Amino acid sequence: MDSKRRSLIGFEFGAEGGEEFSAINPATGEALAPMYLSAPPADLDRAAQLAAQAFSSYSRRTGKQKAAFLREIARGIDSIVDQLVIRTPQETALPEPRVRSEAGRTSMQLRLFADLVEDGSWVSARIDRGDPNRKPLPKPDIRSLWRPIGPVAVFCASNFPLAFSAAGGDTASAFAAGNPVIVRAHSAHPGTAELVGEVIRRAVRTCELPEGMFSLLFDAGTQIGTALVQHPKIKAVGFTGSLRGGRALMDLAAARPDPIPVFAEMGSTNPVFILPEALKQRGAEIAKGLHGSVTIAAGQMCTKPGLIFLPAGPDALALAENLGDRISQTPAAALLTPQIRSTYESQIKARNQQKDAALAAHGESPSPGGGTQVSAALFETNASYYRARPQLAAEVFGPTTLLVSCSNREDLLAVARDLHGHLTATIHGTEEDLREYADLVEIIENKVGRIIFNGYPTGLEVCHAVVHGGPYPATSDGRSTSVGTQAIYRFSRPICYQAFPNASLPAELQDANPLGIWRLVDGNFTRGAADAAQAAG
Amino acid sequence: MDSKRRSLIGFEFGAEGGEEFSAINPATGEALAPMYLSAPPADLDRAAQLAAQAFSSYSRRTGKQKAAFLREIARGIDSIVDQLVIRTPQETALPEPRVRSEAGRTSMQLRLFADLVEDGSWVSARIDRGDPNRKPLPKPDIRSLWRPIGPVAVFCASNFPLAFSAAGGDTASAFAAGNPVIVRAHSAHPGTAELVGEVIRRAVRTCELPEGMFSLLFDAGTQIGTALVQHPKIKAVGFTGSLRGGRALMDLAAARPDPIPVFAEMGSTNPVFILPEALKQRGAEIAKGLHGSVTIAAGQMCTKPGLIFLPAGPDALALAENLGDRISQTPAAALLTPQIRSTYESQIKARNQQKDAALAAHGESPSPGGGTQVSAALFETNASYYRARPQLAAEVFGPTTLLVSCSNREDLLAVARDLHGHLTATIHGTEEDLREYADLVEIIENKVGRIIFNGYPTGLEVCHAVVHGGPYPATSDGRSTSVGTQAIYRFSRPICYQAFPNASLPAELQDANPLGIWRLVDGNFTRGAADAAQAAG
Repeated sequence: MDSKRRSLIGFEFGAEGGEEFSAINPATGEALAPMYLSAPPADLDRAAQLAAQAFSSYSRRTGKQKAAFLREIARGIDSIVDQLVIRTPQETALPEPRVRSEAGRTSMQLRLFADLVEDGSWVSARIDRGDPNRKPLPKPDIRSLWRPIGPVAVFCASNFPLAFSAAGGDTASAFAAGNPVIVRAHSAHPGTAELVGEVIRRAVRTCELPEGMFSLLFDAGTQIGTALVQHPKIKAVGFTGSLRGGRALMDLAAARPDPIPVFAEMGSTNPVFILPEALKQRGAEIAKGLHGSVTIAAGQMCTKPGLIFLPAGPDALALAENLGDRISQTPAAALLTPQIRSTYESQIKARNQQKDAALAAHGESPSPGGGTQVSAALFETNASYYRARPQLAAEVFGPTTLLVSCSNREDLLAVARDLHGHLTATIHGTEEDLREYADLVEIIENKVGRIIFNGYPTGLEVCHAVVHGGPYPATSDGRSTSVGTQAIYRFSRPICYQAFPNASLPAELQDANPLGIWRLVDGNFTRGAADAAQAAG
Repeated sequence: MDSKRRSLIGFEFGAEGGEEFSAINPATGEALAPMYLSAPPADLDRAAQLAAQAFSSYSRRTGKQKAAFLREIARGIDSIVDQLVIRTPQETALPEPRVRSEAGRTSMQLRLFADLVEDGSWVSARIDRGDPNRKPLPKPDIRSLWRPIGPVAVFCASNFPLAFSAAGGDTASAFAAGNPVIVRAHSAHPGTAELVGEVIRRAVRTCELPEGMFSLLFDAGTQIGTALVQHPKIKAVGFTGSLRGGRALMDLAAARPDPIPVFAEMGSTNPVFILPEALKQRGAEIAKGLHGSVTIAAGQMCTKPGLIFLPAGPDALALAENLGDRISQTPAAALLTPQIRSTYESQIKARNQQKDAALAAHGESPSPGGGTQVSAALFETNASYYRARPQLAAEVFGPTTLLVSCSNREDLLAVARDLHGHLTATIHGTEEDLREYADLVEIIENKVGRIIFNGYPTGLEVCHAVVHGGPYPATSDGRSTSVGTQAIYRFSRPICYQAFPNASLPAELQDANPLGIWRLVDGNFTRGAADAAQAAG
């Protein structure tokens, strides 16, 4: 038996000839069997051609049919959890409970999108009825809805091998909108991607969808990912990863003969602001919460709080001491990959050596032979020192954070004004603090996608209202979210029909409203038929 | 009196020192007084700084306040129509009735956006209420809405000196969303821009808004436009013009340290498909309608039909003859600028000389001394010749179109499949034709933003449902529209609040729904309070 694994190209396997690689167990540094073969360019081309063919069919499936497909994938994910909790921890050092909960989130997301497209109102149907008697010119009948955009490329994220990977949020929203997907597996967890990829293609077969609905490409380096973003059949890209990687994809897409949208979620330091009364009343509780949020998943969350601003004084010292104690007692934790570990170590070293900030505490040391294990680290500085050193605002991916004491209110507002784009900002305060710092809220509203009050940025709720996005460099496009149902609009676009016969319109736009969806008819929201709309308004 | 006109920078005038230029009367070739001075870089910088200051205040105004501002501008436009009908025709050769109707459309658009923001539901408010008792983790309260993005740069269009210029659709939607605007005047109609710009800044004063709400920059070349797109305070760009110009702005924006979205409406040839029964039954009527659509505004509409596909045969010959007769009798018409005229002339000459297509008819010759006048022109070819020469699919801006006869159904589908992105496609057919050519509709749905049945693409309805957009190269981002109320989402972005106290939330997200807007509460649309939502759902 040939143990070298090849890409999944529709219902077939890819060709040989590409570079070999294997996952590394971060806990031991050992290579994990089996070997994987990078996809040769012809594999990508075949996947893209199949996807384009599949699009013309799948893009016209009903919401019910798309929902059935999404639920079939969700069932499949649920059915392989026992395999995932063996393989995924080997590839990522993430513990079994985390893998179980992430698998649960992944199938939950798929079901959320299934409900969304089964309901059908997401298409934002709009009807402006015509009036042949309008003067000076007759008014034409105009109707529009959102339709899928075309084959979507999705890049698996290192830090969420399930929820932001092969069947993660981008794939779920792209399928929900009506698009085929080509996934580029992360080279750190190809085995996880393969297990999930097989689930997806079984679902494609079970639901009798065209084989081009899904392909999974393995890639030891960046070659296939580059070619994927440049391929003429690809119409949009979803990515979660580093600023450097995301920006490279943005630049590739912008340089295409026909530029396409790239939705990249990249670096974020997720600033936390602790206001005076809250610091006084709840400093110890906040230290405990921050410690959990900084160290969960070894600090490898996109929303890890990496900057904590607080008013200088005895309460700040108490919080720093409490947090420092907790960091000191934090066991060493294995990072996702050897590369992430070496980047973390060099960033910590640089921060320490250059005296940018004082190392206030460090966690327990890695055990010998502990693979990618690292120590947690707490740094401290003050606002004037911080403001003079832009490198202190950079994301350090791993279990570390930086406390920045501010000598007065103006200091706190100044560091807020200096912020670039982030996914989140967090404010701890009493309600009175919040009113007194209304200008702080106004500043950070222009810097982030989500503002948390008296909570912690990690632990993202997947729902209708959530926004997991933010201005550059947090993402490539702050007008979008990668989590929650609004993500479906990334991979769709509006199209309008003028003076079409009722029977030739998509069901969503027909007079009788056969799907019973919410529509904006002559400017009024209604679930009724178009004829009854004016009375309802 | 210094007759050289300077840019409008907030409530002041710009500096001297920039290159001088004046508008040219296309009808006579003569320079029009007064002289205009290009904005020096310091003017742009001051405008941008003022805009950023204005943003922090204006972005928090209520819908009612924004509506009052938009309506004040609309009133101002209405009040200067008698001045516009003198100056604008001198700068553009557009006749008085067109200028009157375009001014009416411009103030109507402003009022449409005023109604939209006064109603307030456009913010797409979403509320997912928390549940402290949810297991295994409490569910946080998450609420989101769309907020303005920041200062917007708008480029005036050559072909719509009012409706797509200083107070045009981009400016209206940017103001409506809550953003200040910096307009780069078109060098062909600076006087029109100045009249409208003065109206806008009077409205800023009348409404007691910050002076940075609006600036108007004159520019003889491309220098200030380039610097505008690169300026760090600018957060988005609106543009209507050529593919070359739009792509240049896209590339500039993509290369910024922080890339920003560019919404460019560029080239479109607006293909028309005439299906067999319609051709047989209504060929003469269609020829008349097409003639009007090709020659209105001297063929300088973004939606001018430049490609007409029809089944070969006697009916096609009859239509071609009819259309040819009409073209032959078409008076010469003045184009907007000498440059547009010379491009048109050279494109017509190239098309004719290279025998890409036969010149079937040409209109009346320009009168001597007729400035930018040109003759209308009808070309003919067949599908196989057309498919082999991609240059025949390119937009020719001016009063010309190309008839392409298709020898069979497959030919017609093949030319449809070859199309790149366009703003519109039009189908003439009986309802039975339309059913028989359902696959044609499916193909063109992926190529355009608007499909017209038994009508003509020029004459765009400004309403809620309209989509004036389409895949590249018709626009830079097919996920958007430049006309109609959905355009407000270009210049806004979603932001979400987690666990915020009710009183500190924006009014749109407060429990009681004090603005009475439509909201998605726990997945259900309602205009009620958040507390009553579950019962209503």
